[in-house]
Amino acid sequence: MTTKLIFDCTNLLSDTMGEERGITEADLAKYSEASEEILREAEAGWLPFRELPYREDYAESVQELIAGIPSSFRTLVNLGIGGSSLGGNALVSAAAETGPKNQRNVLFPENIDPVFFYRVLNRLDLEHSLFSVVSKSGSTAETAAQFLVVRDELIRRFGIEGYRERVVVTTDPEKGDLAALAGRDGLRKLPFPEGVGGRFSVLSPVGLLPAAFAGIPIDQVLAGARAMDVRCRAGSIPENPAMMIAVLFHLSAERGRRTVIFWPYSELLVPAADWFRQIWAESLGKKLSSSGSTVHAGQTPVRAVGVTDQHSQLQLYIEGPFDKIVCFLAVNDYGTIVEIPDSGVALSSFKYLQGKSLNDLIRAEEEATEMSLARAGRPNCKLVFPQINAFHMGEYFYLLEVATAFSGSLSRVDPFDQPGVEEGKRFTYGLLGRDGYEDRLQEILAWRKKQRKTL
Amino acid sequence: MTTKLIFDCTNLLSDTMGEERGITEADLAKYSEASEEILREAEAGWLPFRELPYREDYAESVQELIAGIPSSFRTLVNLGIGGSSLGGNALVSAAAETGPKNQRNVLFPENIDPVFFYRVLNRLDLEHSLFSVVSKSGSTAETAAQFLVVRDELIRRFGIEGYRERVVVTTDPEKGDLAALAGRDGLRKLPFPEGVGGRFSVLSPVGLLPAAFAGIPIDQVLAGARAMDVRCRAGSIPENPAMMIAVLFHLSAERGRRTVIFWPYSELLVPAADWFRQIWAESLGKKLSSSGSTVHAGQTPVRAVGVTDQHSQLQLYIEGPFDKIVCFLAVNDYGTIVEIPDSGVALSSFKYLQGKSLNDLIRAEEEATEMSLARAGRPNCKLVFPQINAFHMGEYFYLLEVATAFSGSLSRVDPFDQPGVEEGKRFTYGLLGRDGYEDRLQEILAWRKKQRKTL
Repeated sequence: MTTKLIFDCTNLLSDTMGEERGITEADLAKYSEASEEILREAEAGWLPFRELPYREDYAESVQELIAGIPSSFRTLVNLGIGGSSLGGNALVSAAAETGPKNQRNVLFPENIDPVFFYRVLNRLDLEHSLFSVVSKSGSTAETAAQFLVVRDELIRRFGIEGYRERVVVTTDPEKGDLAALAGRDGLRKLPFPEGVGGRFSVLSPVGLLPAAFAGIPIDQVLAGARAMDVRCRAGSIPENPAMMIAVLFHLSAERGRRTVIFWPYSELLVPAADWFRQIWAESLGKKLSSSGSTVHAGQTPVRAVGVTDQHSQLQLYIEGPFDKIVCFLAVNDYGTIVEIPDSGVALSSFKYLQGKSLNDLIRAEEEATEMSLARAGRPNCKLVFPQINAFHMGEYFYLLEVATAFSGSLSRVDPFDQPGVEEGKRFTYGLLGRDGYEDRLQEILAWRKKQRKTL
Repeated sequence: MTTKLIFDCTNLLSDTMGEERGITEADLAKYSEASEEILREAEAGWLPFRELPYREDYAESVQELIAGIPSSFRTLVNLGIGGSSLGGNALVSAAAETGPKNQRNVLFPENIDPVFFYRVLNRLDLEHSLFSVVSKSGSTAETAAQFLVVRDELIRRFGIEGYRERVVVTTDPEKGDLAALAGRDGLRKLPFPEGVGGRFSVLSPVGLLPAAFAGIPIDQVLAGARAMDVRCRAGSIPENPAMMIAVLFHLSAERGRRTVIFWPYSELLVPAADWFRQIWAESLGKKLSSSGSTVHAGQTPVRAVGVTDQHSQLQLYIEGPFDKIVCFLAVNDYGTIVEIPDSGVALSSFKYLQGKSLNDLIRAEEEATEMSLARAGRPNCKLVFPQINAFHMGEYFYLLEVATAFSGSLSRVDPFDQPGVEEGKRFTYGLLGRDGYEDRLQEILAWRKKQRKTL
C-alpha cells in the first residue's frame, strides 16, 4: 500500500472525460513554459511559508511549552479566527488520538456569537483549561474581545498568577497591541512567524501548539510537509502535484468552472476542507492583478461532506450547470472498522448490507459517486489519504499551500494579501466608536437613512 | 419591535445597487403575470407539504409518544440522512433550551464514516438513549446500515423488550422494508407523510419528534408556519415574501449569479443554513425541465458562518467574480448578552471594545459586512429573526419551502424529485453485491480497468 498522499486527476482529463469536458495534453502543454517559470521564480524568491517545515526550532519551542503545562490541564481553548484557527482545527480533528490514550481536547470557538461563546465558557472546567490567544497583527477585533472576556474572568477566579498560568499568546514577536499586553501581563509567548500570513501558518506554532497539546507527533507533521516539498520542487507538469493542481484548477476556472467542491469522505477531514476553503478563497479572490489591472479573479471553494451530501448536494452536482469541479478527499484505511452484523434480516433493503462493514459502504459510495459524476460529464479528482495521520496531514497542508501560491502566479494575483476585507473592519470600528473612525460612523449613519424594502 | 421574520431585499434592488447590479421595478414587473399564475396554480393544486402546518394530529402523535418516554432518557439519536435529518437538526440547534431547564440532547449522526459513527456510539449512555430511525422509502442504505449496527447492540444489551423501548421508526406508514421490519420487531411507528419528500418534511413527525424530545414547543413551530402561510398566499410580488425570494433569486441566477451564499450571523442558525442548502440544491438542480427539454438548471447554495467567514470567504465575496448573491440570516435579539468588561486596557486595539458587548460587536460586523458588500456592487439581502425561537423557525422553514416550490415553477423544473442520485445508488448496490445489481458491478469492474493518472 502506498505511504504517500496521492493526487488522482484521471477524471479531469480528456482520456476519461472527452475533449469537451476534459483537459487535453495540448491544454497542459500550453502551461509548461509558464509553470517552469513559476518554479524557477519560487526557487529564487523562496517564500517564508516554505521555510516552516524546516523550522525545528519552532517545534522545539512548542514542545517545551507543552512540557511545562500541568497534566491536569485537559482542555486547550484556541482564541483566534480564520488563519489563526482553521489549520490547528484541521490538524487536531484529523490526527488527535481520542479515547483512553488521550484525555485532552482542544476547542476552536472562532465565533463571537454571544449565545455560542457563553455556552462554550460556561461548559469549561476553567481551572484545568489553557487559553491560547492567536493573532498575527495583535489587533483582531474578535480575538481581542474574546480575550478581554476570558482575561477578566481568569484574573477574578485565579488571581494574576493563576491567569498567567492559563494563557499563552502567539503573535508577531516584535509589534502589535497583543504582544504589548502579553508583555505587561507577563504571559508566555510563541512567535507568529514574520512574513507568513494566517492562512499559511499551520506549520508554525499557530497550528503546532494545539496539535502538540492534543498529543499529535508534530515532528511527523513537519516530516510529511518536507516529503511533499521534495515532490513540489522536482519537475514541472505533469509530475509536480502542486503545479498540476494549480494548472488543472486554473484551466477549469478559465472554462467557467468557477466553483470547486472539496468533498472529504471522512468527518475527521471536514475541518481540513474548511482550511482549504479559506486558503483558496482569500488567496485567489482578488479584484486587481499584480500589475494593477482589474480582473475580479477567484474560484469559489465549497466544502461538502461525504457521504452525507450525496443526500443534499449530489443532485445539483450531477444535473445542474456545468460550472463546478469536484475534489474528493478519499481514505484508504480508516483504522476503525465497524462491522454490520449478520442479524438474518432477509428484507432486501437490509440483506445485502449484513456481513459487510461501514467501511465497505463508505468506500463503495465514494467510488460510485466519483464514477456517476464522471459519466455525467462532471470533472472530478481526488486526494487519497493512505491513512489519516500526522504525516499525511503535513503533506496535505503543504501541497495545497504551494498549489495556492502557484495558482496565484498563474492568475497573476498576489496570493498573500487580503485588501477587500479592510473596509468592513473600518465600518465596524466606526460603529463601535473607535478613535479615528468617526468619519466611517457618519457614512454608516447616512447609509442607514436609505429607505429599506422589507416584507 | 417586530414579531415576525422579515425579508429585507434593499440591497438587491436598483435603488441601492444601481441598474447594472440591481433589480429594477421593470425587471420585477416582467414576472408579475408569471407569479400570479404560479400563485393561482398553487391554490388550485395545493401541495401536500403545505398541509403540514395544519396537521395537529401529527403534533399530537408526537407529543403522545414523547410523553411515554421515561424522563431518564437523556439522549435522542436520530438515525437518518439528508431530509431525514437536516430539518430536525436545524430546529433543535436553533430552538432547544440548553442548560438546567433542559437536560436532554439530540444527536444527528448522519454519516456512516466508521471512525465517526464508532465514536458517537461509544460515547453514548446506551441505557438512557432513544433511537429514532427515519427513512421515507425505508430502504436508505446509510440508515439501514446504522440501524442494523444499533439494533444488534440494543438486543444484545437489553433484550428484545429493552430494544423495543429504545427505538421509534418514522417511515411510510404503508410500504417499505423499514416499515416491515418495524412491524415484525414490534416497534413504535410515526408516519412519514405521504407525498412529502424528505427535504419538505421538517414540519411533520420527521422534524417534530426530535424537537419535542428537546423540549421545543412544537405547536409554536406550526403556528409560525401558519402565520407565514398567510403571508405567502396574500398578494403577489412585491408583497409576497416567498414569491419575492423566488423571483429575485431567479433573476439573479439568470444574470449569472449562480451561487447563493446563505450566511447566518449565529452559530445556532448554521444547521438552518445547511437545511436550506439541501432544499435549494436538490429541488432546483435539474437536468430536465418539466416539459422534458435539457436545461441543467440550478443555483449553488453555499453556507457561510458569520462572523467567522469574514476571515475566510469575505475577500472573495467582495473582490472576486460577480457570480454570487448573499443572503444573511440576521438576529435582532440574541437573548444572552456577553459584556466585554472594562479592564482599563488602554491599548488602542482593546480600548474601544471595553464596555461594549459581544452582541454589539456581532451586530456591528453584520451591518458593516452588508454595507461593504453593497458598496462593492455585491447584491445581498437578509432574513431578520426578531429572536431565534420555535415560532420564527416555523416561519423560516415554511417561507423557504414555499419559495423553493415557486422557484421550481419559475425555472419550469419539478422541485419534488431527485433523479440524478439514483445511478450512484445502483453502483453502490452493485459493489456491495445486492441481488439484481450484478450488471452494475460489471460496469464498475470495467471502469476500474481504465488507466489512472496519479501523482
